[in-house]
Order: sequence, then structure tokens, then C-alpha cells
Amino acid sequence: MSQVSQKSQHIPRATIERLSVYLEILANLKAEGIEVVSSEQMAAASKSNASQIRKDLAYFGEFGVRGMGYYVKDLMQSITSSLGIDREWRAVLVGIGNMGRALLTHKAIPARGYRIVGAFDSDPNKIGTRINNFEIYDIARLPDMVHELNAEIGVIATPPDKAQAVAEYMLQAGLHGILNFASMRLTVPADVYVEYVDFLHHLYALSFKISLAKIR
Amino acid sequence: MSQVSQKSQHIPRATIERLSVYLEILANLKAEGIEVVSSEQMAAASKSNASQIRKDLAYFGEFGVRGMGYYVKDLMQSITSSLGIDREWRAVLVGIGNMGRALLTHKAIPARGYRIVGAFDSDPNKIGTRINNFEIYDIARLPDMVHELNAEIGVIATPPDKAQAVAEYMLQAGLHGILNFASMRLTVPADVYVEYVDFLHHLYALSFKISLAKIR
Repeated sequence: MSQVSQKSQHIPRATIERLSVYLEILANLKAEGIEVVSSEQMAAASKSNASQIRKDLAYFGEFGVRGMGYYVKDLMQSITSSLGIDREWRAVLVGIGNMGRALLTHKAIPARGYRIVGAFDSDPNKIGTRINNFEIYDIARLPDMVHELNAEIGVIATPPDKAQAVAEYMLQAGLHGILNFASMRLTVPADVYVEYVDFLHHLYALSFKISLAKIR
Repeated sequence: MSQVSQKSQHIPRATIERLSVYLEILANLKAEGIEVVSSEQMAAASKSNASQIRKDLAYFGEFGVRGMGYYVKDLMQSITSSLGIDREWRAVLVGIGNMGRALLTHKAIPARGYRIVGAFDSDPNKIGTRINNFEIYDIARLPDMVHELNAEIGVIATPPDKAQAVAEYMLQAGLHGILNFASMRLTVPADVYVEYVDFLHHLYALSFKISLAKIR
């Protein structure tokens, strides 16, 4: 089992957000058989700048090749092990609407080491059916099954008005990490981490930039 | 038509991201008939702190009620008009897989003033069918139809390997704003804005926090 390094405890949130972009680029380079990448190439691919990249990657030790760049494979390994994500993470998914189905069939999730090990809903018409090899279980079974399935992450893809009740099932089940796709803030104890996937702020940001461009 | 104020041109990105949370909270308060909210209440609901809230909201003029808080309705109006989003924004959606279907049926999108006015795919089995009152059009018709539909935003919900080609159709169509759900960086000219909805970084952040909590 991996262990998070002391140094990486201080990685800023903004750096962690950029790391997912870097990992994406590194994974593509690796797939193309490219072994070394410069910070300038990383900058071009990530729409960032080379000094930002060098600063972010400095958290992951000395993987630079003087005057050339970074070893793709070593850098990927260093980032994932520093973040403690170089292992399988098991997640349960609650809410099998369109968003839930999209997540069950999403190829990028298992490709990054995240495995959905159980799918749950409260709709009797959905319980017992199968989607993409997943049997849909009754949400009432969540607290018991999380332990059995050895899951650490709960994913909420329900309508907003169901999200808090689902979060409470997840707390009962002993989960400490929730990824919430529902447009609803959750109330949870301080030792439970919630990440919100909120695409509305991206729409706001786009509108804002388009509006600004028009008046310039 | 709304106009972005001079002052709001300097709103930091991090503030804009938090605004979507504030707007969510304000919309819920308004729905409950609550007229005034304190920065402390906003802080509790948004998992932020009151001084951050006051700093963020200072971009939107003087809407505080001394010793009480903010007028819910006025503050919402001020935020949306400052961002230039207090009008309808028309978007076209490309890629009618599970994610695309989830977006076509997502209630929060029209509730925030964003209207999907056209849905496109390249699959002959999907073209001409209807989903939730949307006819699915051939992607080849996108450049012509964007003008006719008066759309300003393009939403990409295709597999990653199709995303760049779709972006190029969108550029041909004259769109300057793209919301990209595909796990793929896009290459676009400098006057085109792309926002990436990347839930993988939220999974990385969760794993990282869970790992850190275990070693503390």
C-alpha cells in the first residue's frame, strides 16, 4: 500500500487540480512511446507556462533531465505515489439516472485506477436490473455492502433533493470520501471529505469571458 | 442585453468559482422565501468563512445591510448582472451518449438561464431520433445551424478521440466558448474560450485527502 510523502502534505489545491491535466498529458505521451518531455512541451499541451509547470513538478522530487526535461514514466509514478493514488480505489455509485449510467460506462475512470464496485438506486424498477455488468442494488443495502465491497469512495449522482439522504447512508456505511455530482451542498462531519463536480461554474465562467470579450 | 461592469473585469477566477456556490445558496434561500442572509450564514452553507464571503461579495457593490447581512434578491441580481449572465445563453450540444443524455435532461441547466437549442451526433442510428423533445441533428449541419439557432456556447460530450474534430466544427460555426466534458485537451485559437469539466481531479483530490488522513 502506498504512503503519502511528508512533502506532498503541503501540495496546494491549485497544484493538485493541475496535476490531473499533467497526468492526462503524460499518459498520452507514454501511450505514444515518448520517454522524455520538456517543461515547454508540457506547457504547450496544458495551456500553462513552463515556469508554472517546473514549480508544480518540484513537489515531486528531482525528475528533471538537465537541459532536456522530465522522464515521462518516472514523473507519472512520482506524482501518483506522492498523491497516494498509485493503487486501486474502490467506489460505490448511488443514483442510476443518465449521469449514473454515464459514469458506469466511462472509460477514463477505470483507466485512472478508480473502480466502481457497486451501483445503487432506490427505484424498484431499477433494483435488480443490470447495466454494463453492474447489478443495481437497493440503496438500503449500502451500509452493509460498502464493507463487504471494501469501498472507500461514495459517488452521488442522484437528483439534488436526494443527495443529503444518500450522503447519510454513506456516513453510516463508514465512507470518508464523497464525490457529489448533484447540485446540492452536503452537510457532513469534519472528517468526511466532499468534492463537488459543479459544471455550472464553468458555464458562468464561459458566459463571463464571452461577455467581457464583446466589450473590449 | 446586459453589460459587464468595468469593475467585474477584474474578478479573480477563484471568486467566480465560488460564485456558483453562492448563487446556488441564494437561489435556495429565495425559494424558501428568505429575504436577508448574513455572511456567517452564507459561510456555513458554503463551507467557507465569513471574511472570504465579504471579500468576494465586495466585487458586487454595496448590498450589505449594516449588522444584518445581504438582501438575497438584490445580491443575486447584482452577481448575475456583473457577470453578464442575467440573460438567456443558447448552447448547442454535440455527443448524445450517456453524458449527452444526462445534459439534455438536466434541470439545473435551464434553471440557471442556459438553454440547449440543438443536439448533434455523427451516429446515423441517432440522427433524426428524439430525446426529451430534442431532435438529434447530423454533426455536419452544425456550422450552418449554429447561426440559425443563435447559439453562443458549444458543449462537447463525445468520446475523447472525437473532441478535437468537434471543436473544429464549432470554430467553423463561429462559436467562441466551449464547455468540454471529454477527457481531452483541445487546441483552439486564442480568442476561443474552453472550460474543461474534469471530474478526475476531484477523484485525485479525494484519494489524496483520504490517504493523508490515514497517516495523520
